[in-house]
Amino acid sequence: MELIIDVGNTRVKAAVFEKDSLKELVVFQKEKIISEVKKIIKKHKISSGIISAVATLSEDKLTKLHEILSLIELNHSTKVPFENKYKTPNTLGVDRIALAAYAAVNYSDTNVLLIDAGTCITFDFVNKKAYLGGAISPGLEMRYKSLNNYTSKLPLLKSQEPENFIGDSTNSCIHSGVVNGIVNEIDGVINQYKSKYQDLTVVLTGGDTNFLAKQLKNHIFANPNLVLEGLHKILIYNRADD
Amino acid sequence: MELIIDVGNTRVKAAVFEKDSLKELVVFQKEKIISEVKKIIKKHKISSGIISAVATLSEDKLTKLHEILSLIELNHSTKVPFENKYKTPNTLGVDRIALAAYAAVNYSDTNVLLIDAGTCITFDFVNKKAYLGGAISPGLEMRYKSLNNYTSKLPLLKSQEPENFIGDSTNSCIHSGVVNGIVNEIDGVINQYKSKYQDLTVVLTGGDTNFLAKQLKNHIFANPNLVLEGLHKILIYNRADD
Repeated sequence: MELIIDVGNTRVKAAVFEKDSLKELVVFQKEKIISEVKKIIKKHKISSGIISAVATLSEDKLTKLHEILSLIELNHSTKVPFENKYKTPNTLGVDRIALAAYAAVNYSDTNVLLIDAGTCITFDFVNKKAYLGGAISPGLEMRYKSLNNYTSKLPLLKSQEPENFIGDSTNSCIHSGVVNGIVNEIDGVINQYKSKYQDLTVVLTGGDTNFLAKQLKNHIFANPNLVLEGLHKILIYNRADD
Repeated sequence: MELIIDVGNTRVKAAVFEKDSLKELVVFQKEKIISEVKKIIKKHKISSGIISAVATLSEDKLTKLHEILSLIELNHSTKVPFENKYKTPNTLGVDRIALAAYAAVNYSDTNVLLIDAGTCITFDFVNKKAYLGGAISPGLEMRYKSLNNYTSKLPLLKSQEPENFIGDSTNSCIHSGVVNGIVNEIDGVINQYKSKYQDLTVVLTGGDTNFLAKQLKNHIFANPNLVLEGLHKILIYNRADD
């Protein structure tokens, strides 16, 4: 069994994999990382693991994690199962590296567009095991927050599926502008890839997967946890190489 | 001759109209409003005017403006040349009121979608002199700012037309995500209106008009100063009623 640890700004996702399947997913606050990881290791027979986005973790916590577990730290020099054609690989986010790894291993002979709807919406394109890049756009919550923050009069709303694309009040206009706007943006970008690359597989992941998936016109595969799956692929790729 | 004064957060646009045409446009800092307006009145034979977004102007300055000019203040009780079907008319921005007035007067027997690409991107739909509403989405600069502000690692960039929708560096990914994202969003929303309302005229206005107009697939009319044109229509409508 392997442990995948994805450190976010405030929360940590820890996933236990057995062979290729995610057996258990635990989400906890970053401060509790040592005690939570100890609990997981005790419960499952964990042999090794991988950790991403360690930049925001204290040296002290990282040292402790290495003491209790054989751990790969994902960074820009970690070996990955794809060819990276990005021109600024040192600024490529670890989430995007993990997603590219997932696509390269699972869809090795086709074109894959990965859309991660989280804090940002990232688009990543993997063309037969070569990572080409994509786009970074503001995420769902970020759009609601920015409309409130950068104007003097618009309220801060929680995301809600618009009843009509023509909003008839300030609140429904914001829901249409943010949600219907994102849906049109994603469908439009998918169509651009489709017209350039035939045989395209589109995968949607990230925290807003379920909210957005049902509203898109294009056929997509939806899986909120692909970053964890991708981290697991990188772990296996590095272990096989030992 | 008439004077149209559009007060923004920091800048003021003042436009001189003779009959239906904009003769001169002056942009200046808000602090200089009294001296600049005096200059314009002296230069042209101004008979009357309208001012919008006065909420951010001091009482003192507003009083002085009324002393030097016969002035209508646009607010939610001003008479407008369209039927307002918005359910929250008191929170309808004055720019959007002006745009609806422009559409109702200039396109009285057709359907008009007005897209104002400024701080926010607003969509406003006027259906044969009836204003129905629309949407509010983050504007071009707001998206660049939010990507920088709400993440720890993304840089603040100035808007730039992306060379390719597949960005191959962090900067080109941001340009694609913001600019190509907005273009897909706007084209997608236009298509939604088109499929529901035949005989649709689409007009693009606001500070980012020229930057965005050439990138859209749909046929649109582009005019960066439609808010001023709309304010002029409201002035004429109120004067005719005296």
